[in-house]
Amino acid sequence: MARVVSLKKPARRSRAPVHADIKDPLLAEKGRGRIDWAGRTMPVLSQIRERFDRQKPLKGVRLAACLHVTAETANLVLALKAGGAEVALCASNPLSTQDDVAASLVADHGVSVFAIKGEDNDTYYRHIQEALNTRPQLTMDDGADVVGVLHNDRMELLEHVIGGTEETTTGVVRLRAMAKQGVLRYPIIAVNDAKTKHLFDNRYGTGQSTIDGIIRATNRLLAGSVFVVAGYGWCGRGLAMRARGMGADVVVTEVDPTTALEAVMDGFRVMPMSEACKVGDFFCTVTGNIDVIRQEHFEKMKDGAIVSNSGHFNVEIDLKTLHRLARSRMILRDFVEEFTLKSGKKIIVLGEGRLINLASAEGHPSSVMDMSFANQALSSEYILKNHGKLERKVYAVPQLLDQEIARLKLKALGVKIDKLTPQQEKYLASWEEGT
Amino acid sequence: MARVVSLKKPARRSRAPVHADIKDPLLAEKGRGRIDWAGRTMPVLSQIRERFDRQKPLKGVRLAACLHVTAETANLVLALKAGGAEVALCASNPLSTQDDVAASLVADHGVSVFAIKGEDNDTYYRHIQEALNTRPQLTMDDGADVVGVLHNDRMELLEHVIGGTEETTTGVVRLRAMAKQGVLRYPIIAVNDAKTKHLFDNRYGTGQSTIDGIIRATNRLLAGSVFVVAGYGWCGRGLAMRARGMGADVVVTEVDPTTALEAVMDGFRVMPMSEACKVGDFFCTVTGNIDVIRQEHFEKMKDGAIVSNSGHFNVEIDLKTLHRLARSRMILRDFVEEFTLKSGKKIIVLGEGRLINLASAEGHPSSVMDMSFANQALSSEYILKNHGKLERKVYAVPQLLDQEIARLKLKALGVKIDKLTPQQEKYLASWEEGT
Amino acid sequence: MARVVSLKKPARRSRAPVHADIKDPLLAEKGRGRIDWAGRTMPVLSQIRERFDRQKPLKGVRLAACLHVTAETANLVLALKAGGAEVALCASNPLSTQDDVAASLVADHGVSVFAIKGEDNDTYYRHIQEALNTRPQLTMDDGADVVGVLHNDRMELLEHVIGGTEETTTGVVRLRAMAKQGVLRYPIIAVNDAKTKHLFDNRYGTGQSTIDGIIRATNRLLAGSVFVVAGYGWCGRGLAMRARGMGADVVVTEVDPTTALEAVMDGFRVMPMSEACKVGDFFCTVTGNIDVIRQEHFEKMKDGAIVSNSGHFNVEIDLKTLHRLARSRMILRDFVEEFTLKSGKKIIVLGEGRLINLASAEGHPSSVMDMSFANQALSSEYILKNHGKLERKVYAVPQLLDQEIARLKLKALGVKIDKLTPQQEKYLASWEEGT
Amino acid sequence: MARVVSLKKPARRSRAPVHADIKDPLLAEKGRGRIDWAGRTMPVLSQIRERFDRQKPLKGVRLAACLHVTAETANLVLALKAGGAEVALCASNPLSTQDDVAASLVADHGVSVFAIKGEDNDTYYRHIQEALNTRPQLTMDDGADVVGVLHNDRMELLEHVIGGTEETTTGVVRLRAMAKQGVLRYPIIAVNDAKTKHLFDNRYGTGQSTIDGIIRATNRLLAGSVFVVAGYGWCGRGLAMRARGMGADVVVTEVDPTTALEAVMDGFRVMPMSEACKVGDFFCTVTGNIDVIRQEHFEKMKDGAIVSNSGHFNVEIDLKTLHRLARSRMILRDFVEEFTLKSGKKIIVLGEGRLINLASAEGHPSSVMDMSFANQALSSEYILKNHGKLERKVYAVPQLLDQEIARLKLKALGVKIDKLTPQQEKYLASWEEGT
Repeated sequence: MARVVSLKKPARRSRAPVHADIKDPLLAEKGRGRIDWAGRTMPVLSQIRERFDRQKPLKGVRLAACLHVTAETANLVLALKAGGAEVALCASNPLSTQDDVAASLVADHGVSVFAIKGEDNDTYYRHIQEALNTRPQLTMDDGADVVGVLHNDRMELLEHVIGGTEETTTGVVRLRAMAKQGVLRYPIIAVNDAKTKHLFDNRYGTGQSTIDGIIRATNRLLAGSVFVVAGYGWCGRGLAMRARGMGADVVVTEVDPTTALEAVMDGFRVMPMSEACKVGDFFCTVTGNIDVIRQEHFEKMKDGAIVSNSGHFNVEIDLKTLHRLARSRMILRDFVEEFTLKSGKKIIVLGEGRLINLASAEGHPSSVMDMSFANQALSSEYILKNHGKLERKVYAVPQLLDQEIARLKLKALGVKIDKLTPQQEKYLASWEEGT
Repeated sequence: MARVVSLKKPARRSRAPVHADIKDPLLAEKGRGRIDWAGRTMPVLSQIRERFDRQKPLKGVRLAACLHVTAETANLVLALKAGGAEVALCASNPLSTQDDVAASLVADHGVSVFAIKGEDNDTYYRHIQEALNTRPQLTMDDGADVVGVLHNDRMELLEHVIGGTEETTTGVVRLRAMAKQGVLRYPIIAVNDAKTKHLFDNRYGTGQSTIDGIIRATNRLLAGSVFVVAGYGWCGRGLAMRARGMGADVVVTEVDPTTALEAVMDGFRVMPMSEACKVGDFFCTVTGNIDVIRQEHFEKMKDGAIVSNSGHFNVEIDLKTLHRLARSRMILRDFVEEFTLKSGKKIIVLGEGRLINLASAEGHPSSVMDMSFANQALSSEYILKNHGKLERKVYAVPQLLDQEIARLKLKALGVKIDKLTPQQEKYLASWEEGT
Repeated sequence: MARVVSLKKPARRSRAPVHADIKDPLLAEKGRGRIDWAGRTMPVLSQIRERFDRQKPLKGVRLAACLHVTAETANLVLALKAGGAEVALCASNPLSTQDDVAASLVADHGVSVFAIKGEDNDTYYRHIQEALNTRPQLTMDDGADVVGVLHNDRMELLEHVIGGTEETTTGVVRLRAMAKQGVLRYPIIAVNDAKTKHLFDNRYGTGQSTIDGIIRATNRLLAGSVFVVAGYGWCGRGLAMRARGMGADVVVTEVDPTTALEAVMDGFRVMPMSEACKVGDFFCTVTGNIDVIRQEHFEKMKDGAIVSNSGHFNVEIDLKTLHRLARSRMILRDFVEEFTLKSGKKIIVLGEGRLINLASAEGHPSSVMDMSFANQALSSEYILKNHGKLERKVYAVPQLLDQEIARLKLKALGVKIDKLTPQQEKYLASWEEGT
Repeated sequence: MARVVSLKKPARRSRAPVHADIKDPLLAEKGRGRIDWAGRTMPVLSQIRERFDRQKPLKGVRLAACLHVTAETANLVLALKAGGAEVALCASNPLSTQDDVAASLVADHGVSVFAIKGEDNDTYYRHIQEALNTRPQLTMDDGADVVGVLHNDRMELLEHVIGGTEETTTGVVRLRAMAKQGVLRYPIIAVNDAKTKHLFDNRYGTGQSTIDGIIRATNRLLAGSVFVVAGYGWCGRGLAMRARGMGADVVVTEVDPTTALEAVMDGFRVMPMSEACKVGDFFCTVTGNIDVIRQEHFEKMKDGAIVSNSGHFNVEIDLKTLHRLARSRMILRDFVEEFTLKSGKKIIVLGEGRLINLASAEGHPSSVMDMSFANQALSSEYILKNHGKLERKVYAVPQLLDQEIARLKLKALGVKIDKLTPQQEKYLASWEEGT
């Protein structure tokens, strides 16, 4: 006979009160279940956590992480903590925090978390400041906000910092610009550039979770609709692939000719937004740029068009102008806001134009975050090990780490692959052999 | 400058209290928004509702509907009501009721609703009895439960009944069996058999919403997983198509050789469940049969396998046996229950084996329900019009109704199609012309 | 050490000269290899042939078959011959004859074949007459031409005929019209309506072979092109699926609203030909109707548009008018003819508008023809067995034959499927069980 | 009334006899049509040819090109010739020569061509020597054979050489190895590495044409088969995508863990060849390595397995061993050879293990070669312009050339894309802006 058992409550060491600002510590139990559930599909990070627990490579290191506060991030934080780090965690997006996860991190694990779902802009930046108040030696960013604040407002703290990591394409672009201008003050590893990060997280993670976010918010049928994907980078092609997989007729907009040609050859219709805006039922921006959907587009959209964003910042849709154009607004469902233009036409905006996969869904599935965060954990260790050797610039994740993560992941999936025979290795190395 | 306006509160006629059993009438406002949102993508039903409102073809008719109590169903009920019917509504599944929708139907529209999400089995059947207490002249079923109770327990009410409709494949199978045995006591129109119902609702509706339900419940990545679809009927092929669209490696199980061959030719791997159970990461049953996944399969599954059902009844997974086999159970997340077998292996069951697209998601998107429910509304009208001419058997939806619905839908989508030229019509009718 | 061996030459019985009209008997050896190669992927027909050889169910029966004279048809003919039939074979299309196959049938097997690739219209009909001169007792048609000629010109032969079979949708439409008008003079089994025929042959066979024909003729890249499929019946959806699979942006035209809606939900763009003609790079008709692409469309096409047909008759493209509109024509490659309109615009027609999969490729792959022809063979046997019981109308293939063919095919593919347990069979038959 | 006109015969200047070795000059007319047909979908190269014709940037330069002698290559040669070059052309593969194209190049354009389809190994190398006898200043390679022969056998000619280009991945690997060892004697531009080359040619070109080659050779149905793709580089993923698009169940083998993970996430089954060999119906190697399918695999294959290669060299399948294992061989159809092993099991090899898309089909469609060859033409011009500045190493195609080609191609396809607004350009360049 089966019996229902509750989730095991972790042993609590007695400890000093944790410095934190979260919604409600009583949500911890639910968060604990969520963290546990996510952890089950993060086998690579689990293995790293076990090794970190034994070897303590981050012992005593203060680390400020500005990441989406989700169950997957919690698993990263627990790995870093297992490695000996003292972690302060704040949110990289005001809407993406899972309050129950934050509660569990604080209540069950004594992590300093500063994040509340739906916090306003001031609170958002105050929380970053709180995390910086721990005087971090390592920073971990998802959009370069911590780096930005450090370099602009808290320059006195820069002397403590050994290095940092950055998760997103958007952040890496900003950091590269800083390095080029010579203003970057410490070395950063661009986790986003690891193959096991951007080839997976950006494509399969963003692809599925954006579709998930849009469907959760709207419960609309994608089959038979025209779905406009703005941007055909890794995120965009993941999204386009999945939108087509759900039966939509997918239209792609791009600025880069080579990328646009790829979209054409992949069977998508490619056109400028000034055309796409007339035919789309759904729009989703994933470009990393501003005002990708703007007044001239709103004005030509069909009545009832649904607009969303899955790019890092909520700047891709020009919402300021939409507010100005609208004669009224109405919340129809959670994350679904209708703007009625002066003409009477209605435009629907999802999740206030913020990352829809985090606003109305749960972000990337844990199994893709597994690899991204394995890169984060190993890169942090690498920075400490190579302290002194690294310059003030943006580094790639070392290829050996990257390959190792892929290998661990395949192993966890039970997938076996071929090995080169000695003859094959020799052949690849040689050039003398002919037809 | 835009201003935020609340949803317009509908004018309330003063009226006698409504006989109903729902969770909380205060949820009405949220439900109202949801019904409105769904209605926007139900253009066919809207047009029927307008005509019904003018013509009152159902004037004074008592109708008992046993359907999933969702925002889409609410739009059907409002169309029937516009046509003059007095509707009593109960749930066709204990888990699928949207309590806010039920509240709005009662509070805003005076409909007798008997449905509470999560009601136990006794309440479920009591609610059917309550609906039958209105002495219906028309019945509307989604799984033949009202017909079943009427024919078994409430035979005294049969004299009032003029006819009924049935929504599902499962129900139609049961009703055909009854008709064959000569025990069916009134005519039923098999809405499920309309092309504009089963070709769309079962395929595209179930396809998307089942994927949605599984992702909402688990937040797992489908890409790279092995997804086993049991049954390759219309629902099954919809699900298989979408699971592949999300990047899964899809395995199909079937009992019919011709259908199995189609799955093979569609590029899916086909194997018996006794083999599929060893390789699947996700399982979803859509067969209309019992014990499709049973002890012999649980025993061979991988650790952590996730099992769900999207067939009508929660009998497709043999949960009784799984309960017996398990040494403990644990709720990990909403709708996610883990069974630990004596061997230590864990099997995850979603939504207690009930329709996962209704348990953890919102059921079919409204745009597919639009056509199903247009068939319901027009079939009800048809039964009344043809009262006396219909025998005690199961009828197809008249083809003219079916085609008309497709035509209205295309029009609403803005899709134009070709018309046969007179020459083409003549050609098709002729046989004399040769090569 | 391997040694190269030639194909074994079959033993030749001494026999009387065969009445035949083919291109060149010396092509027999190549044809023999082709027939053998096709036979390898026709396991169902092979098994039937073995049984026929033992049981001789067609002993002494005269059979006139008007089919595409291909290696697959040859395997059917050999099975019929093994069953004891005396077969006369003529072509159902002037362009589809494989002359080497015809040669082998005559030279190696003594079959009366009347078919030469590229024969003109007069020869085409003369060949049908020659086949009819054998006074057939069974007819086998692919487009109802033999039935047509028999009923119009050779009514004196009708008294010999016991029954016939028909392979195509097109033919079945014509035969149904004849039966309805009461002019059909003998029973016909509509092989096309067998599930194991039309669900496979029309969809997967036509799908692949039409793409094959178009690519062989043109060597053009489909990826990134706009490919217009006229008609979304089984052939059309097979073709649309494969064109998308090759990376094209597929547009569908239709006249039936329900079918058009399915195409929309499958993610295709649907529009009338009057719009599609402006955007297409490739066009292929599969409708069974006349003048699907006509003057008004030619006039709006893009310069260089490529037009082809995969429907049964070469009437779907209005070539007469195109000839009239053109100021010059030029053969660019085999099966590729360019029409230069007065405006200077060029339109390319493939294979003279005849079935492109037979004109420039080899028709359906043998593994799909396996099932179609198994239906032909078993239907012929069935007609003889039920001689006297059948009326002058169009019959479906008996379901038991159909299912048996699927079962044999799965077995040959090594695919195993589930069997219903006794409990499941009971459940499906019952109606008493509830939620 | 239309009239049939023959292809216009180009005006022939009187000229000295051309030094050439081809099959038959009388094939020129057919080749001319083929070249013309290909040229129609090579709009980028056409535009370059027009400019070259005006500017003569290659005036008087001797160029030896070792490329597949196809209609597309002919268009490249004509562009180079228009630019003023004296071109000697030999084949980069003994089976890929289109003899009619070779004839037209010689007869109509006076190009020195040394290539005969099916030439033996000695002739193959003799033809390379003949091309080198023209003492080339530029080389153009497709597999680095000319570079190889020059560096090994004809070192006396190296002094004339200014630079060269290389078309393939395989060749670039070899050249990089040479450069690393310090033995490369002149600069080479790796055309393969241009985005407009490898992202298109290797993926969409190889994808479609390999499927085309396999179907032409076999006429087998891919739907429902298990298709094993060895290697998931750009060619491999193109092939896998198209095989799936034709309805196959695709299995991928790989040696690189990250690439293997991508294949998994794309929904393919990934396994080592030692497992894949047991389940495959079709095999195609695209790895650039040797002995990818070898004795241990042949021994475990299913009876009737079909093996082919679409990688550059015919070394990917270990045919020597297969010959040894076979007790007999038989040619079943053109390009289809059956090996009967001692056990009686049959293994089918297509096109003698050479590039199947060139052996039994026509190679890449011209529209993809358009971009590859535009890169060749512009790179040749670039080498001449930068003579003296380039070192003895392998260079990428300058990004500006690459982007320009994409832009010209989109224009030719009639596809418009977005342009960055000044605000967007500023945003991308900036790093100061935050959430």
